[in-house]
Amino acid sequence: MGFYLRKRSSQTGLAPGTIVYGGVPRTEAPTLQLITYDLENLEERRIEDLDDIHHTPGKVMWLNVNGVHDEALLTRIGQRFGLHALGLEDIASTLQRAKVDEYTDHLFITLRMLGDGESRVAFSEQVTLAVGSNFVVSFQEMEGDVFEAVRRRLRESIGRIRGAGPDYLAYALMDVIVDDYFRALEGISDDLEALEDSVQERPPEDTLPRLRRLRSKLIMMRRVAWPLREAASRMLSGDLALMQRETQPYIRDLYDHIVQIIDVIESLREVGGSIHDLYMAAISNKMNEIMKVLTIIGTIFIPLTFIAGIYGMNFVNMPELQWPYGYPVAMGVMAAMAVLLVLFFRRKGWL
Amino acid sequence: MGFYLRKRSSQTGLAPGTIVYGGVPRTEAPTLQLITYDLENLEERRIEDLDDIHHTPGKVMWLNVNGVHDEALLTRIGQRFGLHALGLEDIASTLQRAKVDEYTDHLFITLRMLGDGESRVAFSEQVTLAVGSNFVVSFQEMEGDVFEAVRRRLRESIGRIRGAGPDYLAYALMDVIVDDYFRALEGISDDLEALEDSVQERPPEDTLPRLRRLRSKLIMMRRVAWPLREAASRMLSGDLALMQRETQPYIRDLYDHIVQIIDVIESLREVGGSIHDLYMAAISNKMNEIMKVLTIIGTIFIPLTFIAGIYGMNFVNMPELQWPYGYPVAMGVMAAMAVLLVLFFRRKGWL
Amino acid sequence: MGFYLRKRSSQTGLAPGTIVYGGVPRTEAPTLQLITYDLENLEERRIEDLDDIHHTPGKVMWLNVNGVHDEALLTRIGQRFGLHALGLEDIASTLQRAKVDEYTDHLFITLRMLGDGESRVAFSEQVTLAVGSNFVVSFQEMEGDVFEAVRRRLRESIGRIRGAGPDYLAYALMDVIVDDYFRALEGISDDLEALEDSVQERPPEDTLPRLRRLRSKLIMMRRVAWPLREAASRMLSGDLALMQRETQPYIRDLYDHIVQIIDVIESLREVGGSIHDLYMAAISNKMNEIMKVLTIIGTIFIPLTFIAGIYGMNFVNMPELQWPYGYPVAMGVMAAMAVLLVLFFRRKGWL
Amino acid sequence: MGFYLRKRSSQTGLAPGTIVYGGVPRTEAPTLQLITYDLENLEERRIEDLDDIHHTPGKVMWLNVNGVHDEALLTRIGQRFGLHALGLEDIASTLQRAKVDEYTDHLFITLRMLGDGESRVAFSEQVTLAVGSNFVVSFQEMEGDVFEAVRRRLRESIGRIRGAGPDYLAYALMDVIVDDYFRALEGISDDLEALEDSVQERPPEDTLPRLRRLRSKLIMMRRVAWPLREAASRMLSGDLALMQRETQPYIRDLYDHIVQIIDVIESLREVGGSIHDLYMAAISNKMNEIMKVLTIIGTIFIPLTFIAGIYGMNFVNMPELQWPYGYPVAMGVMAAMAVLLVLFFRRKGWL
Amino acid sequence: MGFYLRKRSSQTGLAPGTIVYGGVPRTEAPTLQLITYDLENLEERRIEDLDDIHHTPGKVMWLNVNGVHDEALLTRIGQRFGLHALGLEDIASTLQRAKVDEYTDHLFITLRMLGDGESRVAFSEQVTLAVGSNFVVSFQEMEGDVFEAVRRRLRESIGRIRGAGPDYLAYALMDVIVDDYFRALEGISDDLEALEDSVQERPPEDTLPRLRRLRSKLIMMRRVAWPLREAASRMLSGDLALMQRETQPYIRDLYDHIVQIIDVIESLREVGGSIHDLYMAAISNKMNEIMKVLTIIGTIFIPLTFIAGIYGMNFVNMPELQWPYGYPVAMGVMAAMAVLLVLFFRRKGWL
Repeated sequence: MGFYLRKRSSQTGLAPGTIVYGGVPRTEAPTLQLITYDLENLEERRIEDLDDIHHTPGKVMWLNVNGVHDEALLTRIGQRFGLHALGLEDIASTLQRAKVDEYTDHLFITLRMLGDGESRVAFSEQVTLAVGSNFVVSFQEMEGDVFEAVRRRLRESIGRIRGAGPDYLAYALMDVIVDDYFRALEGISDDLEALEDSVQERPPEDTLPRLRRLRSKLIMMRRVAWPLREAASRMLSGDLALMQRETQPYIRDLYDHIVQIIDVIESLREVGGSIHDLYMAAISNKMNEIMKVLTIIGTIFIPLTFIAGIYGMNFVNMPELQWPYGYPVAMGVMAAMAVLLVLFFRRKGWL
Repeated sequence: MGFYLRKRSSQTGLAPGTIVYGGVPRTEAPTLQLITYDLENLEERRIEDLDDIHHTPGKVMWLNVNGVHDEALLTRIGQRFGLHALGLEDIASTLQRAKVDEYTDHLFITLRMLGDGESRVAFSEQVTLAVGSNFVVSFQEMEGDVFEAVRRRLRESIGRIRGAGPDYLAYALMDVIVDDYFRALEGISDDLEALEDSVQERPPEDTLPRLRRLRSKLIMMRRVAWPLREAASRMLSGDLALMQRETQPYIRDLYDHIVQIIDVIESLREVGGSIHDLYMAAISNKMNEIMKVLTIIGTIFIPLTFIAGIYGMNFVNMPELQWPYGYPVAMGVMAAMAVLLVLFFRRKGWL
Repeated sequence: MGFYLRKRSSQTGLAPGTIVYGGVPRTEAPTLQLITYDLENLEERRIEDLDDIHHTPGKVMWLNVNGVHDEALLTRIGQRFGLHALGLEDIASTLQRAKVDEYTDHLFITLRMLGDGESRVAFSEQVTLAVGSNFVVSFQEMEGDVFEAVRRRLRESIGRIRGAGPDYLAYALMDVIVDDYFRALEGISDDLEALEDSVQERPPEDTLPRLRRLRSKLIMMRRVAWPLREAASRMLSGDLALMQRETQPYIRDLYDHIVQIIDVIESLREVGGSIHDLYMAAISNKMNEIMKVLTIIGTIFIPLTFIAGIYGMNFVNMPELQWPYGYPVAMGVMAAMAVLLVLFFRRKGWL
Repeated sequence: MGFYLRKRSSQTGLAPGTIVYGGVPRTEAPTLQLITYDLENLEERRIEDLDDIHHTPGKVMWLNVNGVHDEALLTRIGQRFGLHALGLEDIASTLQRAKVDEYTDHLFITLRMLGDGESRVAFSEQVTLAVGSNFVVSFQEMEGDVFEAVRRRLRESIGRIRGAGPDYLAYALMDVIVDDYFRALEGISDDLEALEDSVQERPPEDTLPRLRRLRSKLIMMRRVAWPLREAASRMLSGDLALMQRETQPYIRDLYDHIVQIIDVIESLREVGGSIHDLYMAAISNKMNEIMKVLTIIGTIFIPLTFIAGIYGMNFVNMPELQWPYGYPVAMGVMAAMAVLLVLFFRRKGWL
Repeated sequence: MGFYLRKRSSQTGLAPGTIVYGGVPRTEAPTLQLITYDLENLEERRIEDLDDIHHTPGKVMWLNVNGVHDEALLTRIGQRFGLHALGLEDIASTLQRAKVDEYTDHLFITLRMLGDGESRVAFSEQVTLAVGSNFVVSFQEMEGDVFEAVRRRLRESIGRIRGAGPDYLAYALMDVIVDDYFRALEGISDDLEALEDSVQERPPEDTLPRLRRLRSKLIMMRRVAWPLREAASRMLSGDLALMQRETQPYIRDLYDHIVQIIDVIESLREVGGSIHDLYMAAISNKMNEIMKVLTIIGTIFIPLTFIAGIYGMNFVNMPELQWPYGYPVAMGVMAAMAVLLVLFFRRKGWL
């Protein structure tokens, strides 16, 4: 829930552009990996010293930075690639909404990558892509393995990725992140279906907390996806100088996927709401059923007890009491009354 | 519910434009049917080999492909007609939202065709139309018979279809698909009306599940229709080079139908909601009625039992007990009390 | 509820522009009435043969067609006035949303006229106006008397109608139809007020069905009015060649009325909702009151019965039983207890 | 609630521009007051005869008309100032939404002025301002004293009013009307706060009707304010020829006030909703409390009565009955049982 | 709640531009502090006499005014800096929505600064910034310490603030105010989380009032933040002459923060709503549980009491009564019955 919140409040009063890391460091030392490629060649190496980065004209450089809590490192990378201070500040704050910021000769694209394991939706990671005319620098706190698919395509030159520019690379990275959202939604969808089935039979006790957890996952996903849609729509608008015309169909495809994701999120939210209603109806039904049966039992015995009470009276002059068949007849009357009441309740459809 | 979902998650990490079939194959071997026509002539044949397709200038070709799970075939068709890889990827994924994608010299129109039989709404089928300057290629997994109406109009040259271009053919195909939505909605509307009638009399036990089924059908229809509206609006905007001016009134007509469909869907959703409320009110009314009657029965007998209890006490000095008329008088008092209570409840309007 | 629905589903697969009547014929034979007028003259006659229609330059022709189920007739009128096939198709379908369609040299304006009698809202009639540079053709299934007011103004040359063009005539026809909506809303408003008054006193049993009927009337009115607003806004936009500048203030006035109607509809819907809440609160209040009183009666007698039960025990050694004042004292204790309980409940504000 | 409604329905079928007074006349004879001013001079007099109105170049005329039910008078004023017939019709109908209508050389501004006394919100009065290049004619049915403030500013030449044109005068009149809305809202706000306080302590019986009255006042205010916002926004747009550039900041200020009013209305509506919820919660809480206590009393005595019932049985062989301590022990057991039950309910937090 | 309201109503009828202080004066005497700076120098002093303010070309002046209840002072400052009367009126009214007003050569930016202490959200303070080509005048009623951070940055020349123009200074002041919102939201977020935890265990009695307080804080924040977003968006639009191009990225950053704040507010509102639902469910659950248990206890004893009642009857001929084992058998039957009922309720899952 704190999402977007903690960092900013601790930064109150600092000069804009001051880089302050806003999360919990999750990697020990930042690692930098550089891939330089064109259609013919691809070179891949670990960078220890930023001075090792040299640009070869006609080649695209992809510098992947794992670990953004080292503020000095961010500053140096910013200087090396000529990145704007406000953009660098956002990288470190780790709690940004997805967005696209254009500066003179480079773009910052911010989006959120889902985490690993059970709580992957809750712990989404901010990824920032700085895209220049011949480079992409990708920043993240933890090494996420979704980028491995892009690396493989680069190495094996699958599709048009090796021949395209940094804008296509940025697209490819965004695409694998977004595709991962589908996987997360599939998990949520399966859990919701299982919950729905169980509610329709005998609703388990922990239905509400489970539902709550799934719904808050969906809210998280929603907060991840909606701003991304705006960002993608901005990239699609054609007023970003760095996005080349040939990349537009791919961005459009990406945009379509994000819209599908939002669609699915909204549908799943509706499903969640209807499961809630189902559960509530089941609970209230059960309660009603119990109260009804109990009240009926009470209602049958109260008149019988009254009759017994009558013959428990101590009047001297009660001829029935002396009558030898008094007792069995009274018992018969009571039994008949009980049967009649039950039949009456049956016919009314109450039992 | 999985609608739009399964496919994408299995494709994570593949290069964009990679064709992966995302559904369950429902046809054994794909079949291809080619209709070539102009105002004078119409030729219709089955295609076994893609090399058999030759273009005659001035004629329109309609290639109908049943079965999109054969990824190699899609690739070859794409090459034959010069279709964009991203568009082909979408054909196979089968879980797209309705949309129109424009590429250099052709359009991809994606929409959903309702299935057959009972669950036709749930199992809608994706149909993709690739529209070029002299061809339409229609892709679908299962042969749907709604296109038969278009074929008949082509064969018998009904209306202006034979004299018009591929954009009109695409319109005609979309039109029969959309008209089919009306039929589906009519079914749902009839079911809702039947349900409404039954709820107003004696609500049947299975009201809620039946209502739920109808409502989820409407949600499906909604997810089918809304994106289609956007797509049609895009076709109407006039910025698609392939849509000729004479076809615009027809597209506008199509657009109007889609808007009507959405209108009907939203109205039916409201009806569904009001049936739900009616049912809930009926159930709660019935429960209240039961509890009220039971409580009234209890309330009448409790004071009577108390009186009986009094004369069941064993005090030595209870003159009434010795009195010969004690018993009948006590009984009379109790009867009078019961009658008075009943009258009181009646007058209060409680019974 | 079927509104908009039946017709289209029966037309699936026909060529666009095919005229199929979609309603229940309500007039035996179509009747045609022609009024030709300019500032000086007005000629009015019944038309049996379409060839009788001749155009006099400088005059405006108004052909009123009652009965649109004769598809051949529609086709011939279409040919006579050069109307577009899609527009004619819409006339016959009778289930269109209000809209304005512009064709090369004429407009089609579609809107709904309320019916007569009790269920006038439910049975609204589609009216289509085909407006050309010197004619208006109005199509409807049943003769509605609201047009009579326009005819009178034409005959008696009231206002500027005789000197204005066919666009003003079309406006005048739309205006009387829209003014009729106010009358219908006034009826609904009166019914709602009566219902509200009755609910605040003693809610009658049939409140919910009556409310439901009024609310569904409002939904009908809403579905009639909203699309009309769009249509009027389109006419106001100034991009329809046939709408002259001098007519614009009148169209704006019409538009304002439609907006007022929508305003009133939405307000009445809110009133309907609040009556529903009032009724529900009244019902639940009454139920609560009943249960409370019954439970209080029970609660007073249960302890008393317990005391009576004590002295009904058969212990040998119960000194109170032998005591001559035992019985009256026990009775007094019980009476005191009842009084105390009643006072306690009073003070608590429960009784 | 009838707001906007009555008038139109009585006018069905009349020619547009026909002036029909739609309200209840509240002034006996219309009175006309004319103020003519420029920076140096101001002349103020009552007008009996319209021919007395003569225009002096360079001066601004403000004609204030109290009483709009005299249709002939309206027509004559219209002729004297060259006002459009449709605008005059709106003056008389008195049930218009706030709006701005531009005609060739004059504007009509329609808005609603709140009434006086208790029900001032319910009985808002329509005010129409006809603004020309050198005049403002203000129409209203009842003399409202809010204009007195403007008159005083004119007479004493406070602020820039005497040096500005008729557009500024129109602004000044609108401004005092809108400022009066704040006063009305303040009253509603105070009432809501009082109600909220009372509900949090012991909710009075008449809470719901009082709340209903306040909420319907807010709905009235909303219907008054929203259209006015649109109208002010139109005046702000800069496409009205009569609104001079120097007046724009004032119009913007007016617009801001209207937006604030809407803001306050929406907030007060939320407050009203939350008071409703508070009240409902309080009522249901109280009911639950009652039922709980009653049920607990019942539940304590039922087992005790059972024990008493046991020793009321007439078995010959019941040794306890003969035992001299039987009675006190039984009583002790019952007392202990009651105490234990009470303790149990206490510990459970039920009592 | 009175927010925006009081002031305006007391100003009804005054000339626009009349300065009337609308709040409660919170500072004794207004204090003025002037900071004049360029890249090289910074001078800081208290101003007693407005004539002490002299402008040095190339320097930026920041005049900070604490205490806006002195209307004469405001007028003199307005004259000294050439500020528009309407803008000055807004400063004093202290109840404005956030907005940006552009006048010929200066801007007025209005926003709200949160107060101090517990109720800081409720008592937000209006801050107005008048921005000219070489000055910023900041107006507020109480000295807020958030500006101290900007003063420190100015004095120590941190970041680009000393080299930038008055528009950047205005940005910096807005930025520290907005950053303070994050701190307030963090507090609300923590309180909501604490409440949520407590509700999930044993909901405390004061849950609803606490929740109400938090929610009304959020509503306040919302009313503070939404208009600010519009204002920032206006500043971003590029049509304000005074906002220089280099400042745009900073304004965009500010805008992003405001959007984040709104995002957080909306999320917290959802959390508040779900806590409400949780609490209601917990309360109703508890009530149901109590009623169920009580009813079950009653239901078990009622049949037992009936059996006891049977053997309390005084029939002469009741053989069981004479039977030596009658009593123990009857007791056994009753015990067995109780056990069976308990087992039955258990198996049904009711106990």
